[in-house]
Amino acid sequence: MDERRLQELLQEKKYVTLKNELEELNPVDIAELLGYLDVYTRLLIFRMLAKDLAVEVFAHFTPEEQRDIIGLVTDKELKLIVEELFFDDMVDLIEEMPANIVKKILRHANKEERDLINQFLKYPPDSAGSIMTIEYVDLKKESTVKDALNHIKRAGLDKETVYTCYVTDNNRKLEGIVSLRKLVISDEDETIEDIMDEDVIYVHTHDDQEMVAAIFKRYGFLALPVVDKENRLTGIITVDDIMDVIDQEATEDFQKMAAMAPSEEKYLDTSIFDLAKHRVGWLLILMISATFTGNIIRKFEDVLSSVVILTSFIPMLMDTGGNSGNQSSTLVIRGLALGEIELKDVLKVMWKEFRISVMVGLSLSVINFFRIYLLDKVGWAVALTVSSTLFITVMIAKVLGATLPMIAKKLKIDPAIMAGPLITTIVDAISLMVYFSIASWIIKF
Amino acid sequence: MDERRLQELLQEKKYVTLKNELEELNPVDIAELLGYLDVYTRLLIFRMLAKDLAVEVFAHFTPEEQRDIIGLVTDKELKLIVEELFFDDMVDLIEEMPANIVKKILRHANKEERDLINQFLKYPPDSAGSIMTIEYVDLKKESTVKDALNHIKRAGLDKETVYTCYVTDNNRKLEGIVSLRKLVISDEDETIEDIMDEDVIYVHTHDDQEMVAAIFKRYGFLALPVVDKENRLTGIITVDDIMDVIDQEATEDFQKMAAMAPSEEKYLDTSIFDLAKHRVGWLLILMISATFTGNIIRKFEDVLSSVVILTSFIPMLMDTGGNSGNQSSTLVIRGLALGEIELKDVLKVMWKEFRISVMVGLSLSVINFFRIYLLDKVGWAVALTVSSTLFITVMIAKVLGATLPMIAKKLKIDPAIMAGPLITTIVDAISLMVYFSIASWIIKF
Repeated sequence: MDERRLQELLQEKKYVTLKNELEELNPVDIAELLGYLDVYTRLLIFRMLAKDLAVEVFAHFTPEEQRDIIGLVTDKELKLIVEELFFDDMVDLIEEMPANIVKKILRHANKEERDLINQFLKYPPDSAGSIMTIEYVDLKKESTVKDALNHIKRAGLDKETVYTCYVTDNNRKLEGIVSLRKLVISDEDETIEDIMDEDVIYVHTHDDQEMVAAIFKRYGFLALPVVDKENRLTGIITVDDIMDVIDQEATEDFQKMAAMAPSEEKYLDTSIFDLAKHRVGWLLILMISATFTGNIIRKFEDVLSSVVILTSFIPMLMDTGGNSGNQSSTLVIRGLALGEIELKDVLKVMWKEFRISVMVGLSLSVINFFRIYLLDKVGWAVALTVSSTLFITVMIAKVLGATLPMIAKKLKIDPAIMAGPLITTIVDAISLMVYFSIASWIIKF
Repeated sequence: MDERRLQELLQEKKYVTLKNELEELNPVDIAELLGYLDVYTRLLIFRMLAKDLAVEVFAHFTPEEQRDIIGLVTDKELKLIVEELFFDDMVDLIEEMPANIVKKILRHANKEERDLINQFLKYPPDSAGSIMTIEYVDLKKESTVKDALNHIKRAGLDKETVYTCYVTDNNRKLEGIVSLRKLVISDEDETIEDIMDEDVIYVHTHDDQEMVAAIFKRYGFLALPVVDKENRLTGIITVDDIMDVIDQEATEDFQKMAAMAPSEEKYLDTSIFDLAKHRVGWLLILMISATFTGNIIRKFEDVLSSVVILTSFIPMLMDTGGNSGNQSSTLVIRGLALGEIELKDVLKVMWKEFRISVMVGLSLSVINFFRIYLLDKVGWAVALTVSSTLFITVMIAKVLGATLPMIAKKLKIDPAIMAGPLITTIVDAISLMVYFSIASWIIKF
């Protein structure tokens, strides 16, 4: 079923066929299809769907579509949505909705649920608490495998996952975990205590989501328990939510490395004022820093006006220096983010970049020497000045580009700040100083 | 248990305690710990572990550690490893090992297995086939739920996942899927046909892994079936392998966007020759392109030598232009990669960037005007020349930076190529032409 087929069935008023064909789809696809319709038709079809499915589809609507639906449904329908929505989706919903809609929603939650929602809203953004949910299967260690399976049979449909079950004591302290695989292959009469794994890897509510993602990647888990300060089980995080976190963390790094304030919002959904605001700060800082480079040029005005041709190589030197530094800093920042490079590797990295820069710098400057000596016919003195500056610039750029992110990390600053734009600005200044020093020396004014 | 404890127990020769404490850990952690030891001690402990666990630990060794172990174990031990290793780990192993080790391994595989390994080695890198495995649970639609659960009970331990089971006909054609959750909550006597989901989302062996990752993210699946050209089930991909793919695809984009040839190898594991090779190509292309910018300067030598101060603003103009373009291209490239921006949005994006660039460009150039007029005391003509060039440069940079990646995508070139370094080179040339044109006009030579 695609959009065209949907419109066709709607036009022909073949609602039964429409309902049947829709219900064969994944809720994600249904939500997308309904997104093409006007709000009233959307509501019409939404109401046709089986109740459980309808709530699942609702969870995949955009915030705007959710707001429209809530504004139009009856109290009874809203109650159903509130009751059936997974808790993490509910918290997300409340975060996105305007105050009057939130009020309308919370009328259908009891006191206990409202308190829990408030507690969840307080977890810092990007913390484990902010991405966990409460629909997990908990078991007692005294139960038998048979009891546990029966429990899952009854309650399983309303849980975010049943594939990892959590064993807690009466104070909600986490005692162990047991996978559904283990339950299914175990003997019916064994107790949970016999088969559970007591060495549980868990995170705390206030741990950073980046660290949570690293644990998922390292161990290949499907779910991870989250405990509070008293080590009581407060929720679980499932792997599907972690894939979003991985993307989001990479996106943040992309943004920071391009000298922007990071933002979680999608590009097309962000207002131009916000986008401009995210960008102008760093541009301003870098613009003002670049005047330092300008001052260097001004200081050497005499050199430049006696050998005017030198000016024409400034863009090439600046760009190549910036690009060289950018390459090294990108690899190191990414390596640090993925845990492939650690702080203790700093000397190894510097030594590696030094040798690479010699190879790269040498190739570039030899090619450059012959190109400008033979093609531009600039004379050997200028050619030598430009090429040796190029070599030194590439070396400094690569070693600085690799080292600064690691220093930042050591100082607990985000390494992604030490990326291309900042490195370029620093390398620009250095390369010009080198350029003019060599020029004064070789060309002997 | 940490490295120190491990060394302590080794020194005191408390092998029983060592074995017990190790076996409580996750295989990933055991493999890491054993990595700290010399190869003989590693083998000693490896041999102490329970057989199943040992093979799991083996799968998490680095290729080097795997090679060492294979070189030292007996034929019988190697046979066990070959038999028990998951098929995708086996294929990875064979890809990493030198020829003599591969020969040694393949002696323990029967003809059928060898053929299958050869078939898997032929899937293109980065294809669905290259990341799938064959250990899935397959069911027949005539079976009852009870039969199916018994089948899982018997075979479940050797499967990569039991949480999604695949229903195939006698020709291995995929007919449906059924989750373990569904099996557990269903009635024992129901047939698989009654409860299976027939609308299966699947991929083909030659589909790109990036597209596979997008499906996992969209639907939150734990596993995805892979079929061949005749729609026969040939393997499954599990979510844990997809997390690596997501990281890998982002890393590739980081590398391309920093003007490097992409590489899957970890930074510290890559030789300096390879690293230099990945970097020098683009640097060379960009260096030579930058001479075009140099030529522009040379053409306007007269302008520059009569108002020498103009030269000192070139770095600031070039950097700000490059940074502005880099911001826009980064957001658009990332948006395209995540599917948040589509080709049909091109006009929307251009219009958005145009308005942002007016805001950003205006703020920067007003601040710049007063700064250089009041602080540098350059006179209004120069201040106006520099500031209006800045404004126009930011505008061109942002619109170009956002548009070029989309044009690249349209032309089926990787948008990540159209990132900072290339945009900078293009914007440099344009901004200098604008600069000198305005200068000639305002300052009237």
